[in-house]
Amino acid sequence: MALNATLSQHSQSSTGRQNRASSLTRPIFYLLGILLCAEAVAMLVPAAVAWIAGDSDWRAFVASGAITGFSGGSLYLTCRGRPIVIRVKQAFLLTTAAWLTLGAFGALPFLLHVPGLTVADAFFEATSGLTTTGSTILLQLEEMTAGVLVWRALLQWSGGIGIIMLAVAVLPYLGVAGMQLFRTDASERSERVLPRPGQTATAIVAVYVTATVACATSYWLAGMTAFDAALHAMTTVSTGGYATSDASLGQFARREVEWVAIFFMILGAVPFVLLIRAIRGQTGSLFREDQVRMLVFGIALSGLGAAVWLNVNEGIPLADALRLTLFHITSIVTTTGFVTSDYQFWGNAAVVAFFFLTLVGGCTGSTAGGIKMLRFRIVYVALRMQFHRLIFPHGMFPPTYRQRVVSDEIISSVLAFLFLYLLTLVAATIALSLLGLDFVTSISAAATTLSNVGPGLGPIIGPGGNFAPLPDAAKWILSALMLLGRLELFTALVLLSPRFWRS
Amino acid sequence: MALNATLSQHSQSSTGRQNRASSLTRPIFYLLGILLCAEAVAMLVPAAVAWIAGDSDWRAFVASGAITGFSGGSLYLTCRGRPIVIRVKQAFLLTTAAWLTLGAFGALPFLLHVPGLTVADAFFEATSGLTTTGSTILLQLEEMTAGVLVWRALLQWSGGIGIIMLAVAVLPYLGVAGMQLFRTDASERSERVLPRPGQTATAIVAVYVTATVACATSYWLAGMTAFDAALHAMTTVSTGGYATSDASLGQFARREVEWVAIFFMILGAVPFVLLIRAIRGQTGSLFREDQVRMLVFGIALSGLGAAVWLNVNEGIPLADALRLTLFHITSIVTTTGFVTSDYQFWGNAAVVAFFFLTLVGGCTGSTAGGIKMLRFRIVYVALRMQFHRLIFPHGMFPPTYRQRVVSDEIISSVLAFLFLYLLTLVAATIALSLLGLDFVTSISAAATTLSNVGPGLGPIIGPGGNFAPLPDAAKWILSALMLLGRLELFTALVLLSPRFWRS
Repeated sequence: MALNATLSQHSQSSTGRQNRASSLTRPIFYLLGILLCAEAVAMLVPAAVAWIAGDSDWRAFVASGAITGFSGGSLYLTCRGRPIVIRVKQAFLLTTAAWLTLGAFGALPFLLHVPGLTVADAFFEATSGLTTTGSTILLQLEEMTAGVLVWRALLQWSGGIGIIMLAVAVLPYLGVAGMQLFRTDASERSERVLPRPGQTATAIVAVYVTATVACATSYWLAGMTAFDAALHAMTTVSTGGYATSDASLGQFARREVEWVAIFFMILGAVPFVLLIRAIRGQTGSLFREDQVRMLVFGIALSGLGAAVWLNVNEGIPLADALRLTLFHITSIVTTTGFVTSDYQFWGNAAVVAFFFLTLVGGCTGSTAGGIKMLRFRIVYVALRMQFHRLIFPHGMFPPTYRQRVVSDEIISSVLAFLFLYLLTLVAATIALSLLGLDFVTSISAAATTLSNVGPGLGPIIGPGGNFAPLPDAAKWILSALMLLGRLELFTALVLLSPRFWRS
Repeated sequence: MALNATLSQHSQSSTGRQNRASSLTRPIFYLLGILLCAEAVAMLVPAAVAWIAGDSDWRAFVASGAITGFSGGSLYLTCRGRPIVIRVKQAFLLTTAAWLTLGAFGALPFLLHVPGLTVADAFFEATSGLTTTGSTILLQLEEMTAGVLVWRALLQWSGGIGIIMLAVAVLPYLGVAGMQLFRTDASERSERVLPRPGQTATAIVAVYVTATVACATSYWLAGMTAFDAALHAMTTVSTGGYATSDASLGQFARREVEWVAIFFMILGAVPFVLLIRAIRGQTGSLFREDQVRMLVFGIALSGLGAAVWLNVNEGIPLADALRLTLFHITSIVTTTGFVTSDYQFWGNAAVVAFFFLTLVGGCTGSTAGGIKMLRFRIVYVALRMQFHRLIFPHGMFPPTYRQRVVSDEIISSVLAFLFLYLLTLVAATIALSLLGLDFVTSISAAATTLSNVGPGLGPIIGPGGNFAPLPDAAKWILSALMLLGRLELFTALVLLSPRFWRS
């Protein structure tokens, strides 16, 4: 800003350039300012909890809130004015900047309060929260103050609603990785949930809050304390997976808790616009949706298969085995990351299966991460078309999905996304291994953060482990992967293209 | 046949069906008969070597040759007649049947002669040879008779020429996985190497034989015996990687041998039609080819990087480190699979890097397997197009390659191939882990066989290991993967589609 102001005194052309630059960035800084102010207000929640609990760390939250509020307020005040119009380029920039900035400021309470954390640790924890990943570098969560636990849950809960908004309102219009299928104006039937965008946003928040309250009540009825129930409800519905103990949901050792978690993790992984419609009476649209069917039947079938396997090979009674497998498969596929036992002890096949399940993900338009059902559906459509073309070289096979022709543009967009996903996974795995991590730790850490799941594999970062022992450089890489995965790769990576910044 | 004959007495319509069925399969059986007769003749080579060496196993080769020759001769005689026309469906069927049948009969000498082998072992070894993979279940190769070693080398050598013919003459016309880019009639410039297909085939054989002789001479000058030089030349130019000792090329402990191997492995991994043109004076076309540049520069750069890493971290002198890394990277990327030392001891990063290198592969139209350079090029083109579309949603960006527009059909064909490759890898890895193999063994075994490389990772099938300890079921799965990889997946998998068999 100061530099621009100086430049503008010199020539007319540089003023023009400055105006262009300022009209590009001004609305972005303005909206970032509003988001930071909201985050500052959110920090007062753990501050209040800490104050009520009589913990001394309320000061850390108030201080973090003050810093965040001051930064946000300054941006808001200096950049407000004139009507706000966000163009495509600005939407990319704003989206990436928002998740990055909110993560950075969200790290302040950890940095100010938890002893022994590096900057990398604090940023990793906040980013893991905001992206609803759930990998943690905090050891002995049982010893943490109520304020820290509340802040972690709040980060995931707000990250969850943030990603739904992004998937419903922004990504379809940017045309990222097949999300253009969800453009509401492109549909022949009324794909619009509600006539006006503002109404949709309100309805989404209402459903999100209702689901969280329902989940908390269920957890409480299942035997949790009110505090645990509220916090775990926030990290369940957001498919985040932060828990209040190193043992995750295993700390409760109650099968009722596991069944409640299974139900609400799946709820968090289905498209929220369909939940809204279901509540408004169109229940059928939820179960007619391919993505929901694939998710539910996929989890049910693989859970059943794995339960039989566990029963035969490990001698676990079938009912217990089914609950164990359904819970863990749901947890990984919905990218939540809760665990109640270390599935690595179920044998080599479990390790391999859970590695690949890490990449699957939930439905588009939910809080879940990963590759997601829709893309597997499009891949299936594309592969079927390939086989038809081979058998009948001169036939015409326009691929369809939901009775609509899926254009080649969407197919190549989805397939390119998948390949970029895997390339990112490969590059990150190599980078982590260069830091000295072994094959299984490297590849599973990359997969679990890119898919926003949580636990990795192996003795270090497995379901019973923790990300704390990793070197700081690895934590930076994994934080970047969480953000990349959450923003569907293209939204963030497009900023690295020189063309983006030209003209 | 007998069944068909019986049916034809009953009704006119079943006669028609029988004629259609027979006109579908007759030319296939006829050509299979010719191929089996050729294989029977090839079996006389190890028989002669064994007889000259005074080994008793010449009987095994003669017996195998007799069985193979009798089977082939019967097919030839019963199915000859009328002009041979091969349609698209028949080409798929013939290609898959040929590799499967030649592998099955090629296993006979192992089964008849080597004690203690199961049927799975023998089929694995023959298929690994014919697909130029190079994974072996034979322990203590030093103790094997000359006949067995000659037969293994012959399998790889003939598999190598077979795959070049397939890639040049058949796959482009079937439109498999982007190979339609190599359809000679679709080019605006003279992509045809030689005016007539017959001439091209002769030229390819001539170049292949010349390269093998040159390689053998070089190995001999580098210090090998004539016998070793001939055998290793056959498995180098075919990028197969069968050696005459468990220590692979490490048995010679001569740096000259490694440099010769590097040169001829790369030669085996470049498009053979370009080699023919280079010999005819158009040397430039070889170095102007994207695929060749990517292969050579890719190997050189990663070799240099890895050498510096080895020098810094393991204290190996830079010159030695460079030879070590260039040799092993070339060996894995060209899908040959020779080793001179166990790179797993170079650290975690080496294990990770060699895993991913296993999937890369050489150039299309060579003896190399894997994903291959061309497809990475198309992926790059597709990804660049995606980024452009995101930045300029209303711009037109027809992707180009070699100054030609790459159609969406080719892009989705290539991307679908890649995804099918990875799906096959995932399915096979899960299947292997269900047999009890650990994560690293499962995933690296699947990768190394699907890409036709040879060595896997981990203590069992790593560069210093052997596939013998795996259960028989795993050997069947891995044999299937070798065939699937060699036939570019679609060629074989299309036969599993119900539509293929309809009408």
